[in-house]
Amino acid sequence: MEQQTEISTIGEFGLIDRLTKNLEKINISTVAGVGDDGAVVRYPDTDVIVSTDLLVEGVHFDLTYVPLKHLGYKAAVVNFSDIYAMNGTPRQITVGLAISSRFTVEHIEQLYSGIRLACEIYGVDLVGGDTTASRSGLVISVTCIGDAPKDKIVYRSGAKETDLICVSGDLGAAYMGLQLLEREKRVSNGDKDFIPKFEGKEYLIERQLKPEARRDIIKELAERNIVPTSMMDISDGLSSELLHICKASDTGCRVYEERLPIDYQTAVMAEEVNMNLVTAAMNGGEDYELLFTVPLHFNDEVSRIPGVKVIGYITKPEAGCALVTRDDTEIPLKAQGFNHMSKE
Amino acid sequence: MEQQTEISTIGEFGLIDRLTKNLEKINISTVAGVGDDGAVVRYPDTDVIVSTDLLVEGVHFDLTYVPLKHLGYKAAVVNFSDIYAMNGTPRQITVGLAISSRFTVEHIEQLYSGIRLACEIYGVDLVGGDTTASRSGLVISVTCIGDAPKDKIVYRSGAKETDLICVSGDLGAAYMGLQLLEREKRVSNGDKDFIPKFEGKEYLIERQLKPEARRDIIKELAERNIVPTSMMDISDGLSSELLHICKASDTGCRVYEERLPIDYQTAVMAEEVNMNLVTAAMNGGEDYELLFTVPLHFNDEVSRIPGVKVIGYITKPEAGCALVTRDDTEIPLKAQGFNHMSKE
Repeated sequence: MEQQTEISTIGEFGLIDRLTKNLEKINISTVAGVGDDGAVVRYPDTDVIVSTDLLVEGVHFDLTYVPLKHLGYKAAVVNFSDIYAMNGTPRQITVGLAISSRFTVEHIEQLYSGIRLACEIYGVDLVGGDTTASRSGLVISVTCIGDAPKDKIVYRSGAKETDLICVSGDLGAAYMGLQLLEREKRVSNGDKDFIPKFEGKEYLIERQLKPEARRDIIKELAERNIVPTSMMDISDGLSSELLHICKASDTGCRVYEERLPIDYQTAVMAEEVNMNLVTAAMNGGEDYELLFTVPLHFNDEVSRIPGVKVIGYITKPEAGCALVTRDDTEIPLKAQGFNHMSKE
Repeated sequence: MEQQTEISTIGEFGLIDRLTKNLEKINISTVAGVGDDGAVVRYPDTDVIVSTDLLVEGVHFDLTYVPLKHLGYKAAVVNFSDIYAMNGTPRQITVGLAISSRFTVEHIEQLYSGIRLACEIYGVDLVGGDTTASRSGLVISVTCIGDAPKDKIVYRSGAKETDLICVSGDLGAAYMGLQLLEREKRVSNGDKDFIPKFEGKEYLIERQLKPEARRDIIKELAERNIVPTSMMDISDGLSSELLHICKASDTGCRVYEERLPIDYQTAVMAEEVNMNLVTAAMNGGEDYELLFTVPLHFNDEVSRIPGVKVIGYITKPEAGCALVTRDDTEIPLKAQGFNHMSKE
């Protein structure tokens, strides 16, 4: 059993000291980090993007099967993903933690080790935050700051009629990973020695527990001088994000069932749990893939980017937003996804 | 009884639409606000300051006696205070909310009306955020972005031996306001028709429920071309903040009991609840006054700023940090304040 230190023995400032020691500065835009009323950054030549996310225990994560280090990694990466989704590069994050008394110093160090690993891999500086008590559970608030060359920022609102709709990677795997983890949790029935069965489904687990942000796609697009007309990351599900883009751009869209990129393991798992595979791909959240639109003439060029697939096109607003099935039926898109606040 | 709408009936996106409608842009540095993966800001000629705070129900506030509008106002203002404390001007905020099911749309609108009022008064743009469910209670996460002319940012670490220690306003009133609210809550015993007794103590209530950030002091200092050598806002109590400055600056300090600015109402309330007045002034938190140091030769000039008082001076580190009492005894400073994570 590892040593466990109660946070109360070292206090808030002692905890912050332990969590933030040996932080090294990666980006020149980082002027001053942890240890003052605020962090200082400097962006004379670029636009700055700011994004904030909250992760709440019992709503966004279940510590029964999510290791704290993975949780920290994911909390950071999903924020980097928001910056990439605007065609930017993440540079700094601040981390706010509300911690209940059941967490020890070592627990929070594990969480932070994941955050710091993500920062290291993606070249981001951890520059500040706030650490406080909570009455119940863990709340993680991450704000990410990034930059983009002036006028290269991509909004949701720029999609135009006839633009191609593209996605990176594959869809629905993170959601199926969640189904798998939930299933094994039920089967384990609280038995601590229970060994869950993940063989042949490792990819689904990885997509759920350790998502990555698609900076490779942003790089590929930049190298080809392609600036998308609109872009988002897929956190709430493809349907929901397509509706956002079409609403912001005042357009409609058509996407094709046969074009949806779906991994083999996702299909197997959907079969096992008797779930419609297309629903999982369209509405399963947390894929953190990029959804973007490009003008029609980029068709060949964009199709050559590894992992990018054209799945449909943008229409006039009157045409509405629909999925075209294999038998040519049009099904209107609905936002279901991960709307924690709706009755489902 | 006002109409109450369950959040589940309009969902997360519906709620965000209601909260953020008619937002007008105040600052030219705000390029794009709410409605995308991130907000976009532009700071070609200034340094940028970023500060994050979490407010947790049951830890930082008690909705039995804190109206939601006041809570929103305070959540915003305490973040503005962090930016002023670095000699900057707050320009944008993002707001993350985790909301349990007992809150209605109207509740959150009240909270937001306070946030928006604070933004209006202080000239800050609300540019983004995240709204999600929580299992219990309300968590508010505010990130504030501000700017300062290059090389005018004031850190905690610049205090030098012989510098004068200055504070704005008066100390301990917010803490005494909290004592008063807690006392009336106990007396009310849950009776909804109970009328609390605040006569003659309105100032204490106001300091606790509706604190203001001292931008007037920042302006006065700038007009006199005084750049403090170090500065902080007093959120955890004077003792705690002095220790931060002295640690960061590698100095000691002496402050004088007879110099501490204390309001008459604070003194009366301390007497009533049988609490040591100096302890309240030194360790009571949430005053959001500015604590700063200036070189000795600014003595006359700084004393002329309305509401600023010189309370002591910076020493060599070997001298330690102490309060000098009226009978010339030196009492070492201790950080007590609002450290929610220490055993007290």
